[in-house]
Amino acid sequence: MKLSFRKKLAQVIKKNQSLVCVGLDPDPSRIPGIDILEFNKNIIDATVDLVCAYKINFAFYEALGERGVEILKRTVEFVPDAVITIGDAKRGDIGNTSKAYAKNIFDYFNFDATTVSPYLGYDSIEPFLQYAERGIFILCRTSNAGAQDFQSLQCSSCSGSQPLFHVVARKAKEWNKSNNIGLVVGATYPEEMKQVRDICPDIPFLVPGIGAQGGDLALSVHWGVNTGTGGAIFNSSRQILYASTGEDYAVEARKSAEKLRGEIQVLQEKN
Amino acid sequence: MKLSFRKKLAQVIKKNQSLVCVGLDPDPSRIPGIDILEFNKNIIDATVDLVCAYKINFAFYEALGERGVEILKRTVEFVPDAVITIGDAKRGDIGNTSKAYAKNIFDYFNFDATTVSPYLGYDSIEPFLQYAERGIFILCRTSNAGAQDFQSLQCSSCSGSQPLFHVVARKAKEWNKSNNIGLVVGATYPEEMKQVRDICPDIPFLVPGIGAQGGDLALSVHWGVNTGTGGAIFNSSRQILYASTGEDYAVEARKSAEKLRGEIQVLQEKN
Repeated sequence: MKLSFRKKLAQVIKKNQSLVCVGLDPDPSRIPGIDILEFNKNIIDATVDLVCAYKINFAFYEALGERGVEILKRTVEFVPDAVITIGDAKRGDIGNTSKAYAKNIFDYFNFDATTVSPYLGYDSIEPFLQYAERGIFILCRTSNAGAQDFQSLQCSSCSGSQPLFHVVARKAKEWNKSNNIGLVVGATYPEEMKQVRDICPDIPFLVPGIGAQGGDLALSVHWGVNTGTGGAIFNSSRQILYASTGEDYAVEARKSAEKLRGEIQVLQEKN
Repeated sequence: MKLSFRKKLAQVIKKNQSLVCVGLDPDPSRIPGIDILEFNKNIIDATVDLVCAYKINFAFYEALGERGVEILKRTVEFVPDAVITIGDAKRGDIGNTSKAYAKNIFDYFNFDATTVSPYLGYDSIEPFLQYAERGIFILCRTSNAGAQDFQSLQCSSCSGSQPLFHVVARKAKEWNKSNNIGLVVGATYPEEMKQVRDICPDIPFLVPGIGAQGGDLALSVHWGVNTGTGGAIFNSSRQILYASTGEDYAVEARKSAEKLRGEIQVLQEKN
């Protein structure tokens, strides 16, 4: 029987003493002359004992056409089984369509987890949740500036007036029957992360927005990873992948991942 | 210079006297033994003079892996240039990621239009809008039951208290500087369609939910297509593709598309 997502995540965090998730978002213009699959494999080889997860954003592979799909598949296969793979696809469609997306992400690519967009509501997420042993990170408070356009709107609901992302967090808690839901909560909005943590003490967070996006690592570790909570994992893409754009990129990526792991460890001790 | 999306759509609607969009969502279990690319080509050949657009939902192709990407690409290539192709991908991610998705949909696959999800706000949609001659249909009020979970929430905004999908419609109007925005508004919620039409008189609607989903075609034509509005196009997938599951599927698909075109024409005359 496949280990549940939560158990597998806890095991790799313990083994590698790491909350670092490396975002494998290769940009051909930043790694000229290097085969992308080769690049991914070298990054994975250089960091695999320092991280708990790899997050692979579909956009950068789809932009490469058919070859991108092959690279994506072979990259997922290359990650050792003990380390979590997250297919960052942000899908969300009506029921029978979401079912096809879930099949693609979990059956074809065999990811341990994925990200989904909540705008279409429960029946768009339910086909993913059916995969009880996989992790489903619902977009809650994203790390970008535009997050404020809709996610911050004050909404009336049965729990009183609250921002939309609170309603999403409450629904996530309600839908979490198989204990396989997580939430995407950006490090760029630490106060909002605190609010989501108050609503969902036991749900793991996938935290983008540190590094290039300028999020607050200290506060994110503080609110995300308090003892007794679902914990949090921290994604870094560009800061690690492009730590050097020379031939020593893998060596420098390792140093960058090691540095981030250490910074988070120090912050955890202060928690 | 490429014709703008709105002009191209108006031309094909006039030429084929049709507001029918066929959703090419092939389900291998319903067309056993038939090659999907062959199936798509036969459906297109059988209906191309009866429709204004083909909508291709990425989920059903991604579920087929690499071969799916190839079929998707060759299906888009097979559609004659005068007919609109809509890549129904419902993407939405942070800026640099949405840029990669837009590149994939518009540059690699060369779709005339796409669908995008609004949850991440303006900077997630802006990279698509940059393609000024393509159409960007923003999910507003979707056709599924779960649409009510978040889209119907009453939100406070500078225009007073209103459901979230109204706020999305107002933002779409505000962002429509290049006149390339459309909205996805399901036929299953005709009263809500009327409300969106009041907010956005000049924006075209992509209307899913007729046929298998049980939406109200008469009211949708009434509210969607009134003279002087941006108009609407009506998607039908399963009703047309699987009109027959025998060898006569293309002939029956043609009959089904012709019937739908005729029904809409009659309803338009009553408008």
